[in-house]
Amino acid sequence: MPLGEFDLIERYFSRGSGRSDVLLGVGDDAALLEVPAGRALVAAVDTLVEGRHFLPGAPPESIGHQALAVNLSDLAAMGADPAWALLSLSLPDSGDAWLQPFAAGLYALAERHGVALVGGDTVRGPRVVTVAVMGFVEPGLALRRAGAQPGDVLFISGWPGEAAAGLDALRGGAARGDDDPLVRRYRYAEPRLALGRLLRGRASAAMDVSDGLLGDLRKLCAASAVGARLALDRLPVSTELARRHEAKACEQFVLSGGDDYELLFTVPADRAAGVENDAARLLPVHRIGVIEAAAGVRCERDGREEQCGGAGYDHFA
Amino acid sequence: MPLGEFDLIERYFSRGSGRSDVLLGVGDDAALLEVPAGRALVAAVDTLVEGRHFLPGAPPESIGHQALAVNLSDLAAMGADPAWALLSLSLPDSGDAWLQPFAAGLYALAERHGVALVGGDTVRGPRVVTVAVMGFVEPGLALRRAGAQPGDVLFISGWPGEAAAGLDALRGGAARGDDDPLVRRYRYAEPRLALGRLLRGRASAAMDVSDGLLGDLRKLCAASAVGARLALDRLPVSTELARRHEAKACEQFVLSGGDDYELLFTVPADRAAGVENDAARLLPVHRIGVIEAAAGVRCERDGREEQCGGAGYDHFA
Repeated sequence: MPLGEFDLIERYFSRGSGRSDVLLGVGDDAALLEVPAGRALVAAVDTLVEGRHFLPGAPPESIGHQALAVNLSDLAAMGADPAWALLSLSLPDSGDAWLQPFAAGLYALAERHGVALVGGDTVRGPRVVTVAVMGFVEPGLALRRAGAQPGDVLFISGWPGEAAAGLDALRGGAARGDDDPLVRRYRYAEPRLALGRLLRGRASAAMDVSDGLLGDLRKLCAASAVGARLALDRLPVSTELARRHEAKACEQFVLSGGDDYELLFTVPADRAAGVENDAARLLPVHRIGVIEAAAGVRCERDGREEQCGGAGYDHFA
Repeated sequence: MPLGEFDLIERYFSRGSGRSDVLLGVGDDAALLEVPAGRALVAAVDTLVEGRHFLPGAPPESIGHQALAVNLSDLAAMGADPAWALLSLSLPDSGDAWLQPFAAGLYALAERHGVALVGGDTVRGPRVVTVAVMGFVEPGLALRRAGAQPGDVLFISGWPGEAAAGLDALRGGAARGDDDPLVRRYRYAEPRLALGRLLRGRASAAMDVSDGLLGDLRKLCAASAVGARLALDRLPVSTELARRHEAKACEQFVLSGGDDYELLFTVPADRAAGVENDAARLLPVHRIGVIEAAAGVRCERDGREEQCGGAGYDHFA
């Protein structure tokens, strides 16, 4: 049964969170929240638009997951602990069949990371989902894009490119849906929050890869006023990705695919082995290059320079 | 010239704010912000959709203003001091002709209230504008919807209904645009932040009127588990509204119009005169009724009960 706007947020999005720092959650004009003393607030916002960030007809669970995951990934990239989220939903209709699984997907991820949904807004319109997240970090330990120094080791976490290959499979009609592991990586990418925590105070710079490794590396270098040498032969290619695509296509997915929300980060050389060992308990992290003083990104393969391919995804390009 | 997504936020929305509590603003994965000790964080989010919250072809300045104003109004309704905003823009194109005046409208209001824009996201899609705002309040002094007690005096600030009449004039083609004072009230409503501050610790309950006085009063009563008696003959009707419409139409605009962002609030009877006098230095506030124990809203005119008309605006009704 179609519901009024006034019911939607309270009906689907006012589960208790058990967080004692939520003084007032969904249901008033704004949320009242308690930030712990000595920690900075970390805040980000991201929007998903139907047909651009998710395919029409995508499972609502996956959209609920993605809308929060992309934001939690921003907190991971700052080394922050997530706390609260605000949700703004523009929907063409208010049917239970979409909202119930959307809420389930969002809450499954929120509960796994102790995030409370503390407010929201629902309007009728095209299907557009915006989430804002807030979390905490000690200001001196926050991970930033600026801070990479010549000589620092460049790392990427996990298995970038899998999500892009999953989306590619869906678009091409080759995927069977959620029983395809690459599609699951696209629809249910896991924000690297534990890795972000481990890196705080240890990585010299970090960001999450949302628009492709190569394009995002250029942004990290620009923010840090340095350059990088990227070893194409050391890019991680997952077993599943390698099984499904030729080597060259794998490399393109790794270099220019987004949506995995892996972390790209730099560590001073003398700390690199320690970080590598500690991180391995969470997930593999891969040394893929080194920071240099000269601006720009240079690619090499087996020690020889090579033209860098791929580019970041630009919605307005 | 069309710009890439990566340039949009930094190009249009990264003006310095002078706020020393912004440790890191636009340009990283998330903002780093310092919340003052002893104050609670107050957070809200609201979305405007083209064709629903603003007319196609509306001046971009007014959309920039409205997107922030509707959110600041939520902070006003909590008695909070605004601090920071996040912006998420879905746009069909990235032309300067729209973005420049949109940013100007948003910043004009932000600067007037000392709000720093600390982050954002730009995507291509239908024209949908989401703003999340954050501010502070001492938790014990925050205004809530719950808290009204039988015997409390019910107030409304300013001149509700003017904005709805302005929108009506625009829709009917009767308005000349921004030189019509009612249209200006619709497009450039002022969030009642100073009044919210004055009320904190003094009003027993408060909310901003965004969906119509009568519908919002019902929500305030439900949140407080009380009812109200509303004096229709005491509803404020501005000179401009009275000049343009019959008495009955004026009453409908006042009862069911949104978009003025006036504050609806209750004050214990023994404090009502003090609040009234102090508020008068900012703007008129009007006694329009009294809180009663029995649930529901009862209307009266010249001491006689009358059927209440109008209803809150419901996007999905």
